[in-house]
Amino acid sequence: MQTVEVRTDIPQFLPVAGHHVPAPFYLTADMFGGLPFQLAGGSIDHLVGKPVADPHRHEVAEIYFLVSPNPGGAKIDVTVEGERHELSSPAMLHVPAGAEHQFLTKEAEPGSYCFGILLGDKA
Amino acid sequence: MQTVEVRTDIPQFLPVAGHHVPAPFYLTADMFGGLPFQLAGGSIDHLVGKPVADPHRHEVAEIYFLVSPNPGGAKIDVTVEGERHELSSPAMLHVPAGAEHQFLTKEAEPGSYCFGILLGDKA
Repeated sequence: MQTVEVRTDIPQFLPVAGHHVPAPFYLTADMFGGLPFQLAGGSIDHLVGKPVADPHRHEVAEIYFLVSPNPGGAKIDVTVEGERHELSSPAMLHVPAGAEHQFLTKEAEPGSYCFGILLGDKA
Repeated sequence: MQTVEVRTDIPQFLPVAGHHVPAPFYLTADMFGGLPFQLAGGSIDHLVGKPVADPHRHEVAEIYFLVSPNPGGAKIDVTVEGERHELSSPAMLHVPAGAEHQFLTKEAEPGSYCFGILLGDKA
């Protein structure tokens, strides 16, 4: 892959185990000649109090990336194997491969995002 | 790396060749037991018309990720080896390893972000 490539056909909505509806992916493993990770998620200011998935497991590890215009502008709970972790933006959380997990948006100012970076080509 | 790990010591400001000031990194190659990529960047609504770096090259390829609350809410120009590419959010652009590049924010509604994902452990 030695040339510039632009993709505007994003997000791509793909099924993920446990998710209520297909999840929006911005990077998939087949893009740009092949990637060792995938990136899903997006804006969360409309998701306060609404889980997007049941507790579920992936074959691969996942890194949650929470960001907002102002520090503390977004807060989520990530429950991993029954243990709840409260995140305040900006923050990252690493979910080990195979661990049951779920996230819930608690607060989100406009312009808040939560991305899930899957460390492999599987979900 | 089999346990949950949370990082709130982000962004980390690190020097990058060509950049005017240390760049904010959210993921570095040494996090979470080692990663094959790094993620830098952040909010761009305060960067309209202000380049953050001179044209520069990395040893590794880079994917620019442009996102905003509303489609088209952010527009950047990415110049790669002298050729200008106009991106409108949401969009991804792949810069080959070694190619000279620079990005400039043209428009950015509040909550617009541009991330650079470096495909390797070097900048």
